[in-house]
Formats: sequence, C-alpha cells, structure tokens
Amino acid sequence: MKKIRAKAGNNSFLKEYNKKIILDIIRINKAISRAEISHLSGLSATAVGGIAESLIQEGYIYEIGSGESSGGRKPVLLALKPMTFYSVGIDLDVDALNVLLMDITGDVIDKSIYRNISTSDWDKLSEVTLPLINTILNKNNVNLSNLLGLGISVPGFIDIEGKTVIMAPNLGWNYVDIVDVFQKNWDIPVYIENEAKCSAICENWIGQCTSDKDFVCINIKTGIGAGIFASGKLYRGAAGTAGEVGHIVVDEGGARCGCGNYGCLETVASTPSIINRCIKYVKQGVVSSLNQIEDIEKVTIDDIVKAAFHQDSFALNLLNESARYIGIAVSNIVNTLNPSKIVLGKDFCKYADVVMDVVEGVVKAKAIQYASASVDVVASNIGQDSSAMGAAIIPVKKLFGK
Amino acid sequence: MKKIRAKAGNNSFLKEYNKKIILDIIRINKAISRAEISHLSGLSATAVGGIAESLIQEGYIYEIGSGESSGGRKPVLLALKPMTFYSVGIDLDVDALNVLLMDITGDVIDKSIYRNISTSDWDKLSEVTLPLINTILNKNNVNLSNLLGLGISVPGFIDIEGKTVIMAPNLGWNYVDIVDVFQKNWDIPVYIENEAKCSAICENWIGQCTSDKDFVCINIKTGIGAGIFASGKLYRGAAGTAGEVGHIVVDEGGARCGCGNYGCLETVASTPSIINRCIKYVKQGVVSSLNQIEDIEKVTIDDIVKAAFHQDSFALNLLNESARYIGIAVSNIVNTLNPSKIVLGKDFCKYADVVMDVVEGVVKAKAIQYASASVDVVASNIGQDSSAMGAAIIPVKKLFGK
Repeated sequence: MKKIRAKAGNNSFLKEYNKKIILDIIRINKAISRAEISHLSGLSATAVGGIAESLIQEGYIYEIGSGESSGGRKPVLLALKPMTFYSVGIDLDVDALNVLLMDITGDVIDKSIYRNISTSDWDKLSEVTLPLINTILNKNNVNLSNLLGLGISVPGFIDIEGKTVIMAPNLGWNYVDIVDVFQKNWDIPVYIENEAKCSAICENWIGQCTSDKDFVCINIKTGIGAGIFASGKLYRGAAGTAGEVGHIVVDEGGARCGCGNYGCLETVASTPSIINRCIKYVKQGVVSSLNQIEDIEKVTIDDIVKAAFHQDSFALNLLNESARYIGIAVSNIVNTLNPSKIVLGKDFCKYADVVMDVVEGVVKAKAIQYASASVDVVASNIGQDSSAMGAAIIPVKKLFGK
Repeated sequence: MKKIRAKAGNNSFLKEYNKKIILDIIRINKAISRAEISHLSGLSATAVGGIAESLIQEGYIYEIGSGESSGGRKPVLLALKPMTFYSVGIDLDVDALNVLLMDITGDVIDKSIYRNISTSDWDKLSEVTLPLINTILNKNNVNLSNLLGLGISVPGFIDIEGKTVIMAPNLGWNYVDIVDVFQKNWDIPVYIENEAKCSAICENWIGQCTSDKDFVCINIKTGIGAGIFASGKLYRGAAGTAGEVGHIVVDEGGARCGCGNYGCLETVASTPSIINRCIKYVKQGVVSSLNQIEDIEKVTIDDIVKAAFHQDSFALNLLNESARYIGIAVSNIVNTLNPSKIVLGKDFCKYADVVMDVVEGVVKAKAIQYASASVDVVASNIGQDSSAMGAAIIPVKKLFGK
C-alpha cells in the first residue's frame, strides 16, 4: 500500500490537511482499519482516532465491518459513506444535456439525458438547467447542504483560470463566463472544464487510469479532443487548449475541416465524418445492408455499427478507415508524449470491438518501437458518461485535497 | 520580482535548503542586495546575512558593487561568483565530441570539439574522454574539488532513472550503463540525458525559455528530437522517450525511415535528408550554383545554406520544402501541447533566417487559431552547443536545489 504522509502538528490548517489525507487513504484503500491508516499516514493512533471520529460524525465515512485479524480482536474497517454527500455533473453536449448525480464514493446515483435543449443561448442556460438539477436532487432526496458542488463539461476551450469558455464552436459560444452565469442563481461551487479533460479526470479517478501518471484520453464523437495527464497532473498547456488532437493533420490534401485547415483527424474520424462518408457511398449505390434504410440521410452511427457487427463489409470498411486515421494520430501522440495508456472514448466505444485491431496495428507499425511497446491503447469502459462523470468528480476531488 | 519563500527554522537540513533558495534568488536577479533577498525569501536580515557570509566564504557568491540607494547608504549587491565552481558538459554526437567547461553563472569558459573519436565503442569511451576532460580542466586551472559534476548528452533514449542509454541508433548503442562506465574512473557526479532534453534544459536555464512553463525545443540535425517542458518541468513520459517528434508522420507514403516506418519528419527534414535530396537533384542536372561543387557527394549543409543565402533558388527550395514539413510537425505539437514557445535548434539555426517565414506560415495555416496565436516559434540563439551546455547545466542546477 502506498504511504501518504500526513503532517505533524495541531493547528486548524494542519487538522484540515490531515483530514483530507485520511479521507484519501480511505478512498484509495476502499475499506481500511484505523491502525493501517495510522501506519500509512504516519499519524499517531490517537490522532487518527480523533479525525476518524469527526469524519464519522460529519457523515463522510462509516464503519463498514471487520477485517482480518492479525492476532487479537478483528479490526473495524472504515469506508467512504455512500449516498450522503453528492456532486452534480453536467455534460453540455451539442445535441443533449447529460445531468448526473454522484456520491463521494464515485458511484453514479442517478442520471437523466435531456434532448432538444438549446445550449446555444448560454445566458438563459442556468434558468433552463437549474430546474433539471433540482429534479434530480429532489428525486433522490438530496439537500443542497449535502451537495459539494456542480461540475460542467463543455465541448470547447476553457481559459487557463477555469472560469470562461473561450470558444465552443459546436455550441456557437465565444468568451462566455459560464461560472458567473450559473453562480448568480446558485450558491454552491461551480466548476467548468473541457469535455475531454473531464473524461481524463474520470478515467484517472475511477476508470482505467488510476495508476497511470502519463496518459491520454481521446474522445471521438461530434469532435475529437484529448485530455492529457503529464507526470500525474492534468496538463492544460500555456493557454488551456492542450489536447486539440482532432486537428492533427492525418490526410494532407484531405477535406476541409471546420477549423479552416485540411485533412484534420476530425474530417476523417469524427462521427459526422463517418456518417457523411456512409451517405455518400450509399447514394453512389455501394453494396451494403445500409441500403435498406428508408432515408439514408437519417442514418446514425448506431446503424453503421450494427451493420458492421453483422459483418457488412461496407460498414466494416467505413469504421476501419476511420480507425486507421485514429491509429496515425495515436502514433504521433505516442511518439511525442510516450504515455503509458491511451483511452479511446465516447462514440468510439460503440465500435471499438470491430476496429481495435486496426488501431493497434497502425500504432505498432508507425510509432517508435520502445514507446509503442510501453503503451496500452484501450477503449473506455465508461463510454458516453465519462465527461459528465468527470465534471461531477471535480467538486468531489476538492474534498480529498486534490 | 518573484518571491521564493524560504522556510523558517534552524536545523542543518533547513539551513541547506535556505542556502539553495538564496543562491537561486541571487542567480535569477543577477545582482541583488541582502535586504532584497530578505524581502523575497521571507528570511530575517540576520539569517540572510549569515547565509550570505558563508556563501561568500565558500566561494559561490561575491560582492559585486553598490546598487541604487532608496535613501541612506547604497546597498552592497551580491552576485554569483564567476570562474570558481565549474561543470563539464559533453555532447556525444555521431561525428564529434563536444566538451565544454561552464561556471555556475552559466558562462561557457572554454570548449573543444574533437572529431574522429569513435563513440561507438562505449566501453572505452571513458578512457578516451577522461584525458579530454583533464585537458580542458588543466588549461583553465580548474581543480577537481571545484568541479560540480559531469553531464553527458546522448542522441538516444535514456531510461526513466537516467542511468542507462536504452538505445542510441546513430551511435549503435543498446542498453549501455554509461554512468557506470564513467564513474568507474571518476569520482565526481555523472549525469546522462537525451540531447534534445539537454537543449530544453539549456533554453530553460539560460536561453529563450527562462520564463516559459510549457515549451518544446526541437533539434534538427542528423536526427530530429524534442525536449518538452510541461508545467515548468522536463517531461519524460512513461518510459523516458517523450519527444520523439522526428517520427511524426508528415508524408504518408513517403520514404522509409530508419525506424522502419514511412514518411517520418526525419526522412524529409533532417540534415542528411536535405543533403540526399540535394545530391539527387544535382545529379539529375538541376540548375544551381551547387553544380560547381567538384564532388557533389561531398556537399555539406553549409554549402546548401550558403547557396540559399546567395538566392540560389534550388537551394532555397530544398530548405523551404524541409521547413514546410517542420511546420506540419510543429502544428501538430501546437495542437496537442499548446506550448507558449517552440525553439528550433541545431542545424536549423544555420538556415532559420531563410525559412522561418515558411514554418510560421504553415503553423498559422494548420494549427488551431487560439493555440497558434499563443505560441512563439523561434530559432535557438545557442545553436550547436545547446546540448553540451544543457548537459553541463545538470550538475549546476543541483547546486540551486533544482
């Protein structure tokens, strides 16, 4: 078990600091005795006992049962208390608003997806969103006093201070101070974060990257963006836009991208680009089960994925072509950043099983051997909720001093 | 001026810590009074006085003269003492061995370049190199007791512990424990580092990136590699190979690279690739002043650069084509990492003046606007010595607790 050293002393700052250290030890170890906490934190049994007592009284932890005895009485194990303190995460997506309620153990208690909500009118967004938040809180009997905060995931660039959405092209936003918009109607902490960075936070806190210090989560959906962890911390870059891997050029002389450039990864591997290629070829009369769709203009990624799982070779080729370009971008990232893990998420999860071999094959062929040998390229286990969950985790992390 | 807080207390650990803090304040401010040090460090005038006195006696700092008076006596200014404590940096390059002597102010006191030294026989390398180090030390009257250490720059991958060269393809090395090779004949600290990472250390310590937290130095020579600083620290990646940007694919279906892949940046923008293209086209009878070279097989990058400066359009095209590919790779790095600065170094410095417009134009066209607007792409002012200097800086940095 990893030691997390507390600090000796008795002033209120140190007490608060040590409380967070102990909470984090309990979180990481899931169920742990006071004696083990004392060993891992370096704090005396008396100090741990006192802090544990106040954490129990405040409702953050509880006694979950008894552990193995190493001779003598079986030790009582402490764990984070579920369903007591909560956080709300919102994923502001182009076509949907995903609201979820998480408790401090990281469990998703409830979630709702609202479609047909106009996210472009950001000025009225808090008026539209607050009732949805209240609905999920009321349904689950959560008092505001037990709500740690609200995290909002946005598909755009956030300024380096984490207050303003500088640009969210798919939402049509420019320089929107979204934290202020929410906090004028709301007196709990509000945080915003880029959607791919939210997913990376989620994978790091409760997903596949809890043990990785250097990893990259790439979300593939309407757009393509990455959340990068470098040396154990979320990496933002000089102006907060690090991770715009959707605009890595993978097909010089390719189609024009929304960013103005040509042949960006998004033009060949985003969900809309796959759908558009599908429509084009079906109209040209390609042989495929997708011909049976009444109005091909309304084909969805789910239709294409379903056809691919049924061995429709046109659908398989569509997804594999996209995967090959993802492989090129991943190879560049592996060469540049040498991460231990790359997690491919969002819509990619739907068709990961049919294309993962292609991605891995390209990375093996194109990235330098020593770096490609030390990276795991995997599909996210979390899927579409990773941004909303990551957003909800931001206020939860503060409780643990993170 | 930036405050660097020292820690209160009087034990020997804290004294050592505070000494380093004060040394670093003096380094950053170049010449500074005891009162200002006290202000910036938060230490009492008495404590600063005591530490300054011992630093003077040990020979690390000296009184350089008087500063401006703010009423009353003019304050005495302290500065790092030049030519007293030293470090040796060695750049083990494919065709040369660059040995330089640096003092703790960061000034290069002396340097020698040795050609025709076989760097492939690593087992005998220390036997060959130690006399060269002794030569430069003796010539400058430096005692071993005043030598802080030896830093070695290697064109290859260094393991994450910084002891072993995992692979240096151009030297023909695999898994060489170079620190042990040197330390068996040498009882001062020896450090090894990748050559591009050395250049980044140099730019951060005394070059153009002293104020940048997120920047990338790309060395363009026999190979192409980068040193990345993320959030103020050298970034190594999970296995130590971060920065292998020479293998970013910029020309899919292009020529085969030494790494086994096709169309890597190195195949179109390294110095040998420029020379090879030059030879090929001159043999095909292209119109160029380079036709006057007696044996075109022996053309050098300096010949090509000279022709380009004389407006030879063939030579200009050669360099501009290479610059366009560098621009593509830089755009990818800007999108992925959002650095505040990208420094292009080594051979690129020779022709930066003729191609910088091309690089900047490609970055402006291909990188996302917000990230490209916040990056400065510049040529290194340091040139060929940046790796040897960065290697020499590694032992120097330790003195300042870095």
